[in-house]
Amino acid sequence: MWSATVLSLFPEMFPGTLGLSIAGKAMKNNIWSLKTINIRDFSNDKNGKVDDVPFGGGAGMVIKPDVIDKALSSIIDAEGPRIYLSPRGKKFDQRFAKSLSEEKGAVFICGRYEGVDERFLVHNDIIELSVGDYILSGGELGAQIVLDATIRLLPDVIGNSEGLIDESFENNLLEYPLYTQPRVWKDRMVPEVLLSGDHKKIKDWKLKQAEKITKLKRPDLWSKYKKS
Amino acid sequence: MWSATVLSLFPEMFPGTLGLSIAGKAMKNNIWSLKTINIRDFSNDKNGKVDDVPFGGGAGMVIKPDVIDKALSSIIDAEGPRIYLSPRGKKFDQRFAKSLSEEKGAVFICGRYEGVDERFLVHNDIIELSVGDYILSGGELGAQIVLDATIRLLPDVIGNSEGLIDESFENNLLEYPLYTQPRVWKDRMVPEVLLSGDHKKIKDWKLKQAEKITKLKRPDLWSKYKKS
Repeated sequence: MWSATVLSLFPEMFPGTLGLSIAGKAMKNNIWSLKTINIRDFSNDKNGKVDDVPFGGGAGMVIKPDVIDKALSSIIDAEGPRIYLSPRGKKFDQRFAKSLSEEKGAVFICGRYEGVDERFLVHNDIIELSVGDYILSGGELGAQIVLDATIRLLPDVIGNSEGLIDESFENNLLEYPLYTQPRVWKDRMVPEVLLSGDHKKIKDWKLKQAEKITKLKRPDLWSKYKKS
Repeated sequence: MWSATVLSLFPEMFPGTLGLSIAGKAMKNNIWSLKTINIRDFSNDKNGKVDDVPFGGGAGMVIKPDVIDKALSSIIDAEGPRIYLSPRGKKFDQRFAKSLSEEKGAVFICGRYEGVDERFLVHNDIIELSVGDYILSGGELGAQIVLDATIRLLPDVIGNSEGLIDESFENNLLEYPLYTQPRVWKDRMVPEVLLSGDHKKIKDWKLKQAEKITKLKRPDLWSKYKKS
């Protein structure tokens, strides 16, 4: 069973969306497990204080290295890499999700306020990971993103594994457009070729559409695709 | 009040993380509101079917254009742009969050399964938005990401607006490292300069650190920063 361990000041945010639909079913089927740790339980003071003002001034509060380190030490046997969600981190992508799905699990450290003391990250050789170029109010949503993308790649989570082959970012291409019933809707027809039953033609059309969309919308992916 | 409207097959995923901490407090303070619509309520058949197999074959199911269109039509007066979360979309970033926070609200259309019929997106001139280069099992987490990043930029959500000035992606720089008490932890000192009380020196150090980290970790941002 793939094991997720989450350190957070808001453990009640979990499982959140991950308790329903695909991830929720996979959890019920014991494909993955979730353990949450409340960082506040490791506070040194009776008021449950976990943070303090940053040295050198600036807005907001910083999570203290001793507190977060004690929280992490409490789960020393937890499986998988230690990941801190941060906009400064390496960009999380589909390839990373795939490699994480091949681990035995992962530990997610969720910051709040301005962030955590740098020494904690260096001392524990934590992987900093970013889900995108935007600022969230904490790491919890980022952890849920990483978990959702990873869990659906675990064996037996998505019935038809073909569903995983056609999708965006495989081969650096975005996905072709999708059509279903009815054939005509608001005077808009489903493209003829998709009704043709000619598998070769349909495959060519899908690839051409995927190429067109990628070239138009994501020149960065397009140039990677052209190279490979 | 900034108004969020969410179309989803899993409305119970909301508010999720957004009901707690910063976004949760802002909701209680009537800075933003949330309305969820269950797409299934707009099914044409008594079994609540909303999807069908894709034309041209392939794995998974596609949400029918008529069903999702009826759901969208039911909230014709909802404020703000219509956004469909999709890995094929324009990349969501801090600049987009800022512009969205200046709107009166936004409508989020969350796909599940393989996605929605392309004709629905074209017919309604929907903005496709991607939170990152990875595949999620649905649009709900993406919508929560966009909402969280946007809500914290609304007036009076984060007390000290200075907190918004120093952060990552302002000026295309990642944030400098943070330090708090204790001064020495596991033989690791807080950098001297941060204890100096010399504001000019501290400011220079923060900028230099931000530049160093950005150059090392994100050459793409670094070249944007150098240009500006």
